Amino acid sequence: MRPRLALVPGEPAGVGPELCVRLAQRPANRFDLTAFGDAATLRRAAQALNLPLRLLPAEALAQKPGDLPLHEIALPGAPPAFGQPDPAHARAIIDSLELAAHACIDGAYQGLVTGPTHKASLNAGGIPYIGTTELLADISRHEVVMMLARPGLRVALVTTHLPLREVADALTPAALKRTLRITHQSMRDDFGITVPRIAVLGLNPHAGEDGHMGREEIEVMRPVMEALRAEGMNLIGPLPADTAFLPDKLLGFDAVVAMYHDQGLPVLKSHGIDQAVNITLGLPFPRVAVDHGTALDIAGQGIADASSLFAAADLCAELAHHRMNKEPA
Amino acid sequence: MRPRLALVPGEPAGVGPELCVRLAQRPANRFDLTAFGDAATLRRAAQALNLPLRLLPAEALAQKPGDLPLHEIALPGAPPAFGQPDPAHARAIIDSLELAAHACIDGAYQGLVTGPTHKASLNAGGIPYIGTTELLADISRHEVVMMLARPGLRVALVTTHLPLREVADALTPAALKRTLRITHQSMRDDFGITVPRIAVLGLNPHAGEDGHMGREEIEVMRPVMEALRAEGMNLIGPLPADTAFLPDKLLGFDAVVAMYHDQGLPVLKSHGIDQAVNITLGLPFPRVAVDHGTALDIAGQGIADASSLFAAADLCAELAHHRMNKEPA
Repeated sequence: MRPRLALVPGEPAGVGPELCVRLAQRPANRFDLTAFGDAATLRRAAQALNLPLRLLPAEALAQKPGDLPLHEIALPGAPPAFGQPDPAHARAIIDSLELAAHACIDGAYQGLVTGPTHKASLNAGGIPYIGTTELLADISRHEVVMMLARPGLRVALVTTHLPLREVADALTPAALKRTLRITHQSMRDDFGITVPRIAVLGLNPHAGEDGHMGREEIEVMRPVMEALRAEGMNLIGPLPADTAFLPDKLLGFDAVVAMYHDQGLPVLKSHGIDQAVNITLGLPFPRVAVDHGTALDIAGQGIADASSLFAAADLCAELAHHRMNKEPA
Repeated sequence: MRPRLALVPGEPAGVGPELCVRLAQRPANRFDLTAFGDAATLRRAAQALNLPLRLLPAEALAQKPGDLPLHEIALPGAPPAFGQPDPAHARAIIDSLELAAHACIDGAYQGLVTGPTHKASLNAGGIPYIGTTELLADISRHEVVMMLARPGLRVALVTTHLPLREVADALTPAALKRTLRITHQSMRDDFGITVPRIAVLGLNPHAGEDGHMGREEIEVMRPVMEALRAEGMNLIGPLPADTAFLPDKLLGFDAVVAMYHDQGLPVLKSHGIDQAVNITLGLPFPRVAVDHGTALDIAGQGIADASSLFAAADLCAELAHHRMNKEPA
């Protein structure tokens, strides 16, 4: 059975809408799409790219390239100029995300694919928005983990957008345990890996070198990892971060759990971001986002690379398949 | 003119000696080598690999593959068993490094190439050894910067082997200024880059995002960088670490300065370590080391990959050339 995916273009002044128009051109997608957003913005993007676009009712199925079912959440007024986010649109943009998320929670869709948002504009519009990951955690009342992935590498984070000086204290046993549990469960349920091999990076350089360069590995990490291993989890580490990503070593891991943002993400992106996606683990539905921003400087020019959105949609469909084929508990 | 390089094999029970024997086989090297170490250990390595080795007086020049001039620093007793470092050898191993360094300082050699040492065994032998970089800084009384490099990427570090929770406080204006100055000067003198383009990574994720995720970029980094720019340095940043290493961006940088160990080195090593080397910037002579350990488990088997030592020697010769061709101040 083909999963139905909810697709939210994100910031209307950015490249999100045109990437969605491109996605709607792909023949033989292994999923059905319904966009959540503003019709005029999508039509304008199609026109700018000189691509066909036929918007259908939300429940319809695309028949040919260019068909896109739409659950409309209209912007107040005309689409913003390319490259110029309008804070007056903040509410409608957030509504698109919220309605799509609720539709996934309700089971009408089996996964959520999202384009890039513009945080500053949403904040200027009066929305206390931190990120879509956090928004979805709030809506679903689930604890989540942020994972970035590209072919051959998946990196989950224990802490995300914290000042570096707060990281060591934020690495509590509870935070580590939660991240490892959610990552493990998602590797099983969403990725279909029966016994996922999870590499855990040490907080300190050389994973602390037996306590000579920091003691969190000994005092925080090892006890948590021992307890989870006793539950059957296959955890490798704590590993020195600088050698964990050696190409040969990575072959032995299904996911790498980094303790903080710049320990894991620079590695992943240094290998190219065209295929990179951002996955939210722990939600009641799979969610995959592009791993790039709104690219305001090139919006509407038809030169934005759709690889990340294509990869996000393909992966979301794959994750949805795994969940659909799982026996109900 | 061909530079003369001092070559120190490092731990005699590891792969260092056999890599040196392999280096001595290379025809048409663009440099002359003199090893500093134990004759019996080198002979034993050659025998294990079934390669020719003719040890010459230290001042001689190699005439054919397998020739290796040697400044002997004999171990007390026979070479250690492969894979089994002997703390009784600690003093002789350190002597090799110190004599080679002094010979470089005295101008008898134009560069220093070093194999891997075994810290635990040296410490067990009563030497308060932290690393060869630190040893060389002590001997030469110069402030140094550790840089890791591979083709297409050079990463220098402001802080090195510190617990993560101490990093933010260690990022002082003085430490940052020192690292940037030494890196800039070395890019000019050693690498021959007239106006080096130096990317500087922010301490915090997203380089602090205008103070929303840490203020060190605003309070510590920007003032230092402004002052150094006024002196003519081309500094780019503070940049978000996760996007600074995108392949297209790297083309615009001659070096990347990371604030701490795991912000920079995992990226570099994830692209493969066969060509990776460790450079000490700021010494009165160029020093390049292998970027791998003693590999005790495969010592003497003839399967150790000599690429990193070859790359280290080639780069050291190149850096020595640049220094030799520079006008004396």
